Amino acid sequence: MASDSNATNMLQAIRYNRGSLQLLDQTKLPLESVYLEIRDSNDGWNAIRDMVVRGAPAIAIAAALALAVEVSNLDDFSGSTDDAAYFLHKKLEYLVTSRPTAVNLSDAATKLKEIISMAAATTSEARGVFQAYVEAAEIMLEDDVASNKAIGIYGASFIQNHTEKHKLSVLTHCNTGSLATAGYGTALGVIRALHSGGVLERAYCTETRPFNQGSRLTAYELVHDKIPATLIADSAAAALMQAGRVDAVVVGADRVASNGDTANKIGTYSVALCAKFHNVPFYVAAPLTSIDLSLSSGKQIVIEERSPKELLNTRGGLGEQVAASGISVWNPAFDVTPANLISGIITEKGVITKTSAGDASFDIKTFVQKTS
Amino acid sequence: MASDSNATNMLQAIRYNRGSLQLLDQTKLPLESVYLEIRDSNDGWNAIRDMVVRGAPAIAIAAALALAVEVSNLDDFSGSTDDAAYFLHKKLEYLVTSRPTAVNLSDAATKLKEIISMAAATTSEARGVFQAYVEAAEIMLEDDVASNKAIGIYGASFIQNHTEKHKLSVLTHCNTGSLATAGYGTALGVIRALHSGGVLERAYCTETRPFNQGSRLTAYELVHDKIPATLIADSAAAALMQAGRVDAVVVGADRVASNGDTANKIGTYSVALCAKFHNVPFYVAAPLTSIDLSLSSGKQIVIEERSPKELLNTRGGLGEQVAASGISVWNPAFDVTPANLISGIITEKGVITKTSAGDASFDIKTFVQKTS
Repeated sequence: MASDSNATNMLQAIRYNRGSLQLLDQTKLPLESVYLEIRDSNDGWNAIRDMVVRGAPAIAIAAALALAVEVSNLDDFSGSTDDAAYFLHKKLEYLVTSRPTAVNLSDAATKLKEIISMAAATTSEARGVFQAYVEAAEIMLEDDVASNKAIGIYGASFIQNHTEKHKLSVLTHCNTGSLATAGYGTALGVIRALHSGGVLERAYCTETRPFNQGSRLTAYELVHDKIPATLIADSAAAALMQAGRVDAVVVGADRVASNGDTANKIGTYSVALCAKFHNVPFYVAAPLTSIDLSLSSGKQIVIEERSPKELLNTRGGLGEQVAASGISVWNPAFDVTPANLISGIITEKGVITKTSAGDASFDIKTFVQKTS
Repeated sequence: MASDSNATNMLQAIRYNRGSLQLLDQTKLPLESVYLEIRDSNDGWNAIRDMVVRGAPAIAIAAALALAVEVSNLDDFSGSTDDAAYFLHKKLEYLVTSRPTAVNLSDAATKLKEIISMAAATTSEARGVFQAYVEAAEIMLEDDVASNKAIGIYGASFIQNHTEKHKLSVLTHCNTGSLATAGYGTALGVIRALHSGGVLERAYCTETRPFNQGSRLTAYELVHDKIPATLIADSAAAALMQAGRVDAVVVGADRVASNGDTANKIGTYSVALCAKFHNVPFYVAAPLTSIDLSLSSGKQIVIEERSPKELLNTRGGLGEQVAASGISVWNPAFDVTPANLISGIITEKGVITKTSAGDASFDIKTFVQKTS
């Protein structure tokens, strides 16, 4: 299996070798770094439900690998290939119930079930069905990491080619790293690639209120990887740019519309406006799976509102009260950054740019057709 | 004495009637609203040192009134007018040591000492000196409230005259209300005036990270005064404007340079950029004492950096750890908003506007000369 846990010092939230899976308990971050042993789909279900693992791609992969570990260690399975397929299908259906609203998880389960059914129809032994499943789950992990590494490489070289500076300082928002993906990360992957290429002066991360993904998770990853990094309040991004200390902004994406409008963590739009005003290039880094060609623009993206508690109390609403009793709260989870503020969209197939310099939007459809 | 404590339901952090002073204990806000009885300069000194009272004008006035209460209740003072003057001078010098870096406080003490010396030279009884001091201290309180009310009236009418809407929603940042001044407030005074004029749709206040003056103090004041109000994360201001929900922004000022560049709480500049992009008018509300004509531009304003602890832990650094251990922090207390982003500066003598629409800066010197 290709996951080289010990090959680098890079942070791994998902530690996997065939037959063994450990998940970094993100509920204990940043104060404690504890890995939980995941022995079967039941352990996987609990880890997802308890938020040990978070981030859409990471959840789907953790679920798939939990079941892979279970079947790798199955000593005695005396049934037919159909029995093996039924066993896996049921376990996947069970895993999906750990986070019923996670689309990535149910999509992954559907894809894996197809592979299982195909294997059951073409293999003569139950063992062969299990083998096919384990390999498919491992490929999901490898593909996500490979895709993030490609994003990192494309992003880092594009950013370098568009500046005359030898060392760059890059600002990011929210967490898009090893703690949200199978490994390496998207926007944080670009920062990792710049750092390993020796051209990163400093990474700046925002707190990312109200859930503090920046101060808790991104800061944790940057410290872990010994990347020179500084934490700022979200509201200090403008002053940081005014001081000339930011050469580029790279953020992730929850969803990209076909014109390039990008929904991402609340505050992304604010950073994009500040970058525009200071002529700082603003990049979105996301795998092609984040692009939704059925959306013509960001106006079609519905923004989820989250609990007022996140602003009223510490620890995402679980801690002590901070704000005045009785105050109303508006707590949108995301905002939409219009394409005209975005300098480029960094994907695992290359960087999507505007056709002409004056374009307000991207022609993502053509890019996807060309590269697929 | 003119402080009409009971005339309105308005929040008063400083409750004063001749011979009696109570301060709202701001260290207990927003969870508890407790007033501390201040009987003499010693109580005043402790209240200032313990942060019961905060905000530059509020500190100076609280100190002056603490001593006023002490001498109002003095039954037996058998000395001469010079003895009375000496007594007051010494007490003022002691009060200044409660917060040695507060310029307002030492300025106020100097001014009061002059009044005391003059009274001692022109009055025949010690009682007369005390009487002169008490009246001077009371005038400081009255003047600050009157100045804030004038800011409110000028600001509210100017904002109304520059919109066609009947009801307005206004965003503010940090705390500039009754909890930072002798009463009513500057930017929050403008919001109060719009509300009492029946034209305020809703006030929006930011959390104001990292010290949460918005969620703790401004939200408390708005709830207290039953002003329709909503709290947002600092980073959500841009999305709120994008949604068309902000008709004007009003903020306070720590210092205004002679061209109109304004130093204010970190994040003010970010809000100003977002307002500019969305064509939302952006106003600074501040008494003329905040204007420093010796500064030709904001470039001459040195920005204080505060403790990393404010971002790393809750409760301004005193609470539990939030951020990853080992991360560096940049925590500037203020930022500078350039005059070209400011639509007008609201003072107690009227609103300073640009001479022509295209001007990048304000001619504050001429305004000050005309109105003084």
